[in-house]
Amino acid sequence: MENIRFLDTTLRDGEQTPGVALTKEDKLAIARKLDELGVHIIEAGSAITSEGERESIRAIAAEGLSADICSYCRIMQPDIDYALACDVDSIHLVAPVSDLHIRVKLKKDREAVMQMAIETTEYARDHGLIVELSGEDASRADLDFLKSIYQAGIEAGAERLCFCDTVGMLIPEKTEAIFKDLAASLKIPVSIHCHDDFGLGTANTVAALRAGAGEAHVTINGIGERAGNTSLEEVVMILEWLYKYDTGIKTTELFKTSRLVSRLTGIPVAPNKSLVGGNAFSHEAGIHVHGLLADTSTYEPIRPEILGRERKIVMGKHAGKSSVSLAIKEMGYDIQDSHLNEILKRVKELGDFGKHVTDADLQSIAETVLNIQCNSRVKLEDFTVVSGNRVTPTASVKLKVDGQEVVQAGIGDGPVDATIQCIKKAVAGVGDIQLEEYHVDAITGGTDALVEVLVKLSKDGRMITSRGTRTDIIMASVEAMLNGINRLIQAESSDRIKE
Amino acid sequence: MENIRFLDTTLRDGEQTPGVALTKEDKLAIARKLDELGVHIIEAGSAITSEGERESIRAIAAEGLSADICSYCRIMQPDIDYALACDVDSIHLVAPVSDLHIRVKLKKDREAVMQMAIETTEYARDHGLIVELSGEDASRADLDFLKSIYQAGIEAGAERLCFCDTVGMLIPEKTEAIFKDLAASLKIPVSIHCHDDFGLGTANTVAALRAGAGEAHVTINGIGERAGNTSLEEVVMILEWLYKYDTGIKTTELFKTSRLVSRLTGIPVAPNKSLVGGNAFSHEAGIHVHGLLADTSTYEPIRPEILGRERKIVMGKHAGKSSVSLAIKEMGYDIQDSHLNEILKRVKELGDFGKHVTDADLQSIAETVLNIQCNSRVKLEDFTVVSGNRVTPTASVKLKVDGQEVVQAGIGDGPVDATIQCIKKAVAGVGDIQLEEYHVDAITGGTDALVEVLVKLSKDGRMITSRGTRTDIIMASVEAMLNGINRLIQAESSDRIKE
Repeated sequence: MENIRFLDTTLRDGEQTPGVALTKEDKLAIARKLDELGVHIIEAGSAITSEGERESIRAIAAEGLSADICSYCRIMQPDIDYALACDVDSIHLVAPVSDLHIRVKLKKDREAVMQMAIETTEYARDHGLIVELSGEDASRADLDFLKSIYQAGIEAGAERLCFCDTVGMLIPEKTEAIFKDLAASLKIPVSIHCHDDFGLGTANTVAALRAGAGEAHVTINGIGERAGNTSLEEVVMILEWLYKYDTGIKTTELFKTSRLVSRLTGIPVAPNKSLVGGNAFSHEAGIHVHGLLADTSTYEPIRPEILGRERKIVMGKHAGKSSVSLAIKEMGYDIQDSHLNEILKRVKELGDFGKHVTDADLQSIAETVLNIQCNSRVKLEDFTVVSGNRVTPTASVKLKVDGQEVVQAGIGDGPVDATIQCIKKAVAGVGDIQLEEYHVDAITGGTDALVEVLVKLSKDGRMITSRGTRTDIIMASVEAMLNGINRLIQAESSDRIKE
Repeated sequence: MENIRFLDTTLRDGEQTPGVALTKEDKLAIARKLDELGVHIIEAGSAITSEGERESIRAIAAEGLSADICSYCRIMQPDIDYALACDVDSIHLVAPVSDLHIRVKLKKDREAVMQMAIETTEYARDHGLIVELSGEDASRADLDFLKSIYQAGIEAGAERLCFCDTVGMLIPEKTEAIFKDLAASLKIPVSIHCHDDFGLGTANTVAALRAGAGEAHVTINGIGERAGNTSLEEVVMILEWLYKYDTGIKTTELFKTSRLVSRLTGIPVAPNKSLVGGNAFSHEAGIHVHGLLADTSTYEPIRPEILGRERKIVMGKHAGKSSVSLAIKEMGYDIQDSHLNEILKRVKELGDFGKHVTDADLQSIAETVLNIQCNSRVKLEDFTVVSGNRVTPTASVKLKVDGQEVVQAGIGDGPVDATIQCIKKAVAGVGDIQLEEYHVDAITGGTDALVEVLVKLSKDGRMITSRGTRTDIIMASVEAMLNGINRLIQAESSDRIKE
């Protein structure tokens, strides 16, 4: 493998995900991040789609990024004219090459497609564009025809070629054989563009690169139509760590990039997605944490810092002594073995009952077992909220803060917002507590399903995460907030005692 | 490839996902479904974990399923005693085999591990258990030591062996070489157990099966610790469709199984997950839908029915004439070309503005362009809801149903539930409308973030999906319900007119 380049198509394939529509500002933010990452080519969209799309592509092209900016084009002159009007560097010029696509979609024959590909390549070249001539549905095409259209493209001035596995039916060994053949018979770089319909997008892309492909088409988080495209982060990390190939990509920005794209597109990343999923560096099972604490490489292929993220240790029914003991010590408590066994037993009971064991649960168990007076400085007396379509969402909250009754009323964007605003006001006296993040896991089932609210709170640079789980989203939010606030100010009090 | 068996470890590896804890009833439901699917071996848990875990394993073993029931065991006698007490058929007996694991985790040496593996295998065999002796972290182990421990295991009575890529660092070509070697030198079947830390779990599993592995360890949706394990559905469908190998798995139950596991574990499946993701058979882009309508194989590798699911056509900024025209015709409207162009323009404008274009949006656009009196039979006059920690969540809703004012009050598990209960009561007069599913996308950002509520409603066997998007979760829920109800009863009215 040498001189491998990455064409990122998050803004084109990714945006073709059903339901996704990014604004110009969203696209600019993603393009800048891709450029920071070191991606070589950014496919910014398909200029013919709409005026809004062109405004975005134009803005990205005008941004002065290091990456080449590219537009998707069909083998039709108007597509190229629109791309030219956006001032892009290059085009990804896509010709259907399988008989199925030529016959069913274009209703033409091979000769006509060949002619269109040649004419549009020449037209684009004459107007100063770099052309990457791409065979759509190449994996189901006649390989001889494919090679002849590639050859004609080279003669017409194409500087790159691309092989699209449009419906994701390639297998690694076939990909390898095809790319060995193409690399041997064609004089310019051939790209690999895979879809993940069977979960082989990454493996096929890597197989192609090993067999001589010069460029990989990828998207952040593997988003794209249907099951999506090949994930940039997977290919980069496989090359870097399993093949010791230096991609030049700034891997410490991968996690942030993944989050940015997920947030702007609204496409969640599964917790168990490799490298960028929420759980990819989380550990629960007791025995594993034991090994992990001794040497992180026992249960981690790479350190999370390499991707710009952190390790998480999570309690649960599989929790072993070592992880529970570590977590309790981190809370600032000294414990004996007999206490530890009792805490462990209660953690496992909670787990068997089907309940997630959060940090707050563990703290509450530990305090009960250690017979520590649960010293919540902030206690809920009551709250009431009124909402409706003709009612300004209004809440009142009565708290006991250090024994003093504090009442606050407030309004908000909805009943949850109104209630949280009240709580923030009511606890202003104990310090500058900021709600850094408010997250609700997807709710599925009925309107009486369990709602899990997670808040991230900070005070003077200290950050904690706290959860609330109820069938009522407002109650769950209040619970999460108060749990978190109490732990934040309690930790502070015990620090003070230590000093 | 021949006689390939599947060991499903959703209930063990999957349940080790941080934060997941299944109840006995959950586990039984999953085990029954896996058995219906035709999985050969179900790893039901790790018997030593807790009494709750043992109750679940015992219940699954007593269920009389066709699949063999297996418990995970370390190479320690108590683990086997607990497994015996659960009355399982077989054990997955795991010996750390890399020097890293032997030294750091066990704090022993190779000889000690060898001895423990032999003794526990013999002990289990003597007590009537089938033993699958497994090498943990085998991909980082000395291959000669690994083979010697396997050989000793065979002599001690193991009937199956397993190679674990514990931290997911295998690559397909290395996997192939290893399994060719193992298959040639060992007389009993060797399983492959992969993790997906780099996104290669599926490719490595398939490579092993091609090179002679006799069994694949998999989980539903690829859940498991960190980035999870190999996905059952991917391996099965790759073998069935790309290698024409008959696995015996009932593929039409794959989607339902995926949903069941996601619901019970609470681990969402990414929309772009292959085969089982929400978008895997969804289509938006105009040109693609055009081809797809002519022949689904143009943009689908397999038909969704094969997995027991359906195709979705979604409107959006890339919507082309053919998809918009089809969707509008499905709504029962006759349209001319000039109208169609205007509708298309407005759909694209919405998309450029960053807004998802839902069916309801499209209907509203179409009605505006066609100048159809928007004939909502159910209209919201007002609703009010009161909630709090010492208040029973109570709502009142005033609707105009076919011009008549209907007022209902109700209580619920929370303010959303109370409001939806009122609406359901208020519209009871127009027919038996059922709320089949209530879903809220994960909310991230602040308490004033946009909330997207999706409801699935049915009436007399007709099913529709409708969305509401607001910063207020109750408003979003009301909007989704009323949009959906109106479309459901409107479609019915237009059917009546046609008759």
